[in-house]
Amino acid sequence: MKESLSALKKAARELYLLEHTQAVISWDMETNMPEAGNEERSDQLALLEGIMHRKLTSPEIGRLLSALGADDDKPEGKGDFKIEDKAFIRELYRKYSRASRLPESLVTEMARQTGLSHNNWVSARKNADFSLFEKSLSRIIELTREKAEKIGYKDHPYDALLDEYEPYMTAKDVAGVFGPLGEKLADLTGRIAAAKQVDTSFIQKPYLSELQDRFGRRVIEKMSYPGGRGRLDISAHPFTTTLGTNDVRITTRYDENLVLSGLFSNIHECGHALYELGIGENIQGNILANGVSLGIHESQSRFWENMMGRSMPFWEHFYPEFQKTFSEQLDGIPLEAFYKAVNRVNPSFIRVEADEVTYSLHVILRFELEKAMLSGELEVSSLPDAWNARMKDLLGIVPADDAEGVLQDVHWSAGLVGYFPTYALGNLYAAQFEKNMRIALPGMDDDVRAGEFKHILGWLRENIHQHGMIYPASELCRRVTGEDLNPSYFTDYLEKKYGEVYGLRGN
Amino acid sequence: MKESLSALKKAARELYLLEHTQAVISWDMETNMPEAGNEERSDQLALLEGIMHRKLTSPEIGRLLSALGADDDKPEGKGDFKIEDKAFIRELYRKYSRASRLPESLVTEMARQTGLSHNNWVSARKNADFSLFEKSLSRIIELTREKAEKIGYKDHPYDALLDEYEPYMTAKDVAGVFGPLGEKLADLTGRIAAAKQVDTSFIQKPYLSELQDRFGRRVIEKMSYPGGRGRLDISAHPFTTTLGTNDVRITTRYDENLVLSGLFSNIHECGHALYELGIGENIQGNILANGVSLGIHESQSRFWENMMGRSMPFWEHFYPEFQKTFSEQLDGIPLEAFYKAVNRVNPSFIRVEADEVTYSLHVILRFELEKAMLSGELEVSSLPDAWNARMKDLLGIVPADDAEGVLQDVHWSAGLVGYFPTYALGNLYAAQFEKNMRIALPGMDDDVRAGEFKHILGWLRENIHQHGMIYPASELCRRVTGEDLNPSYFTDYLEKKYGEVYGLRGN
Repeated sequence: MKESLSALKKAARELYLLEHTQAVISWDMETNMPEAGNEERSDQLALLEGIMHRKLTSPEIGRLLSALGADDDKPEGKGDFKIEDKAFIRELYRKYSRASRLPESLVTEMARQTGLSHNNWVSARKNADFSLFEKSLSRIIELTREKAEKIGYKDHPYDALLDEYEPYMTAKDVAGVFGPLGEKLADLTGRIAAAKQVDTSFIQKPYLSELQDRFGRRVIEKMSYPGGRGRLDISAHPFTTTLGTNDVRITTRYDENLVLSGLFSNIHECGHALYELGIGENIQGNILANGVSLGIHESQSRFWENMMGRSMPFWEHFYPEFQKTFSEQLDGIPLEAFYKAVNRVNPSFIRVEADEVTYSLHVILRFELEKAMLSGELEVSSLPDAWNARMKDLLGIVPADDAEGVLQDVHWSAGLVGYFPTYALGNLYAAQFEKNMRIALPGMDDDVRAGEFKHILGWLRENIHQHGMIYPASELCRRVTGEDLNPSYFTDYLEKKYGEVYGLRGN
Repeated sequence: MKESLSALKKAARELYLLEHTQAVISWDMETNMPEAGNEERSDQLALLEGIMHRKLTSPEIGRLLSALGADDDKPEGKGDFKIEDKAFIRELYRKYSRASRLPESLVTEMARQTGLSHNNWVSARKNADFSLFEKSLSRIIELTREKAEKIGYKDHPYDALLDEYEPYMTAKDVAGVFGPLGEKLADLTGRIAAAKQVDTSFIQKPYLSELQDRFGRRVIEKMSYPGGRGRLDISAHPFTTTLGTNDVRITTRYDENLVLSGLFSNIHECGHALYELGIGENIQGNILANGVSLGIHESQSRFWENMMGRSMPFWEHFYPEFQKTFSEQLDGIPLEAFYKAVNRVNPSFIRVEADEVTYSLHVILRFELEKAMLSGELEVSSLPDAWNARMKDLLGIVPADDAEGVLQDVHWSAGLVGYFPTYALGNLYAAQFEKNMRIALPGMDDDVRAGEFKHILGWLRENIHQHGMIYPASELCRRVTGEDLNPSYFTDYLEKKYGEVYGLRGN
């Protein structure tokens, strides 16, 4: 068994290296590549994808996994191994069995269909006309359903899809959390809308990009982003990518008219990067060296972006420097006014521009609709109406057209069904973690006020980062917080914070 | 046969894409990667190397080549194919047979040995002590000899090695060209040394890097380097690399105290890039889309660097702008004085710093010595003495220690035996091509004086670039110039140019 394990590790190491090779060429594609290089680069990516798929589903890996006794009932195998090794077998088995259950014909057809579908989505969005995308989306939903059937599930086909992004979580788990969350958020949003609105005029002025960059770099440096193990570049859409254990890069973009957007991107992506950079040495360089789920990953970026970056202690530290850097725009604006502007709540149509309170409502809407399309309860042709109706329920507003409604996200056109929930799960995990961090670090706010993040980062490393994928998300949550995921920590946090910002009564 | 050919093309396309994938991650390593990423990146490169080797030597490729009738006597196969297809089969057969003749144990041992050897070379050079490198080099020569035996050769083991970099050329061919070349260059160098030396004081001042970069970018733009199909970045050592048909990148580095070094790097690398960018559409995206040999590749960089960039017409165009950009250093310095400084000849110890006249002498010395080591005529232990003696013969100077002598180049420590000749062959091909270009383009100097390079580039594309690897170098040379490689074009060019620069009599 020991020999099988070590042979399996060797094979998995190659997958790990190939994944990072792919990350390098994708990173280059987004940051440096001349546009004319696009076609061949896509071919390079597809080729690597194929090589990895064949390697992952090779008879050798199947044989080794089965020699270790890994199966659906006991994915961690039957050997008497230490915890990291069991987790390694479990995660490789999960990848292997998912990949080998998908026939190549389906994978190819999905790739072909998403390629076509992307173009139709682009033109539909441009023309604000869902009918140009409807047929593509129907086909994608059909193929996605087939994918779910092939992979298999116990309760709902959605489970098989969600598992790719949020392993071991089910649609039922998500619905159980999103139900009460949606109600509370919609209620809070309504009360905020009825309150006196905050002034944001001074952050709507132009702010020089060079100065945004200089300040943004100072912030991530303070957060301990190690320049020697990463770098910050510009790309059309901000992202974090791991190119190796010691090479975790982030990107951002600055808009002179949206000063907070670039800054919070830096902080958000840095939060993701610190997670990957904090993986424990015992699992570095193997497939466990990864965020355990997209929800947990998002909890790290959201914690830094919102619970740190949009907090009063944070700006007590950084505002004097920020105000000095942008004295033209901020002269005479007191900290309290700036803090309120940073935390303005405003129901709006576009998810990626949403504030901390309304953001998760956008996600809940998408989860409900994609689940209903998948089960057949909702026809694709009825999607725009369903979207608009649910926007009205949850956010109290109705989009003027499909471009600012159902066509805004790229995900479905790319076949990413089951992905959306992780965005909101991140908020929930972040708040639940933060609650416990506060107990362990009673001087936390004072640290932040002093621009000192080492205890906070230390707590995250100790409790979350170092473990990589060793513990499934739900187990990690129980280990760190002593209970299952509970959305009330997030809503309590929002009630308290926004009750103050908007002077709400009767909380 | 048609089906075998198309299956072979499909397999070769994957090799082509993997090579470029490797190019992307190597480029990133040299330009962007945080240093701590080095170890894993090297593992990524080694893994890709292994995947490519297994693909190239796969039974499938062997079977297809043999179905097409390709063998040592008829590497282009026996089918009735068009010229590009025959060349494709020939080049793939060459790669395949070289790679499949090398046992994996030898490849692995060579990789291990060059890894160790590199460290020993670094410390030997640092301590200027050849004895620290001697054992490693002996082992490398031994393994290289074994490699040559496995690959096979008709006349001299050196042929099997040279063939990797300068396909179809033999040691005898090289010796036939280098013999007369060495004599003529040594003689010219001696006469120049006895003449009145040129003033270079004004180019030895510091020149601001930012301004060097701005000027250097202007020059490659004038040379038609297409920004939309490439980019210029900074790296420790300048290089050109092809990441895709439409993504050919160059790098440079600027030294405030060596203004010409950065500029001529830009021009040199741009010359390489224009070659790869000029490949004909009929062979784009397959393994023929490459320089036909390193010698021909170097002819392109040297043509632009020396025959253009160090010419009087070139500076008649660019000097006014250059002088204005660096008015502090060049105020009152006339064009003629600047031109002479650019073309200063000075026998020196370090190859990469050598001028146009003495450069090839450094190469001839290395060719003679590596050939003699390989055949056993020269013991590795006697290498430093042989080096110093031959330096005296050819350049009239003797290095003070091994660091500025036998230890200066990285090549042998990396197992690159047979590579050096291509550097000098480039000069020879360039001069022979230029002679013919002048006949076709009588207004060439006027073009350059006007900063107009499109006819020149057009001639290079038409005669050389578009063909990629379709014609072997010797055949290409005959097609373009009507005769075999003939070193007298290069020596005639030097006699004329440097006769004028140094006012030599009796040419």
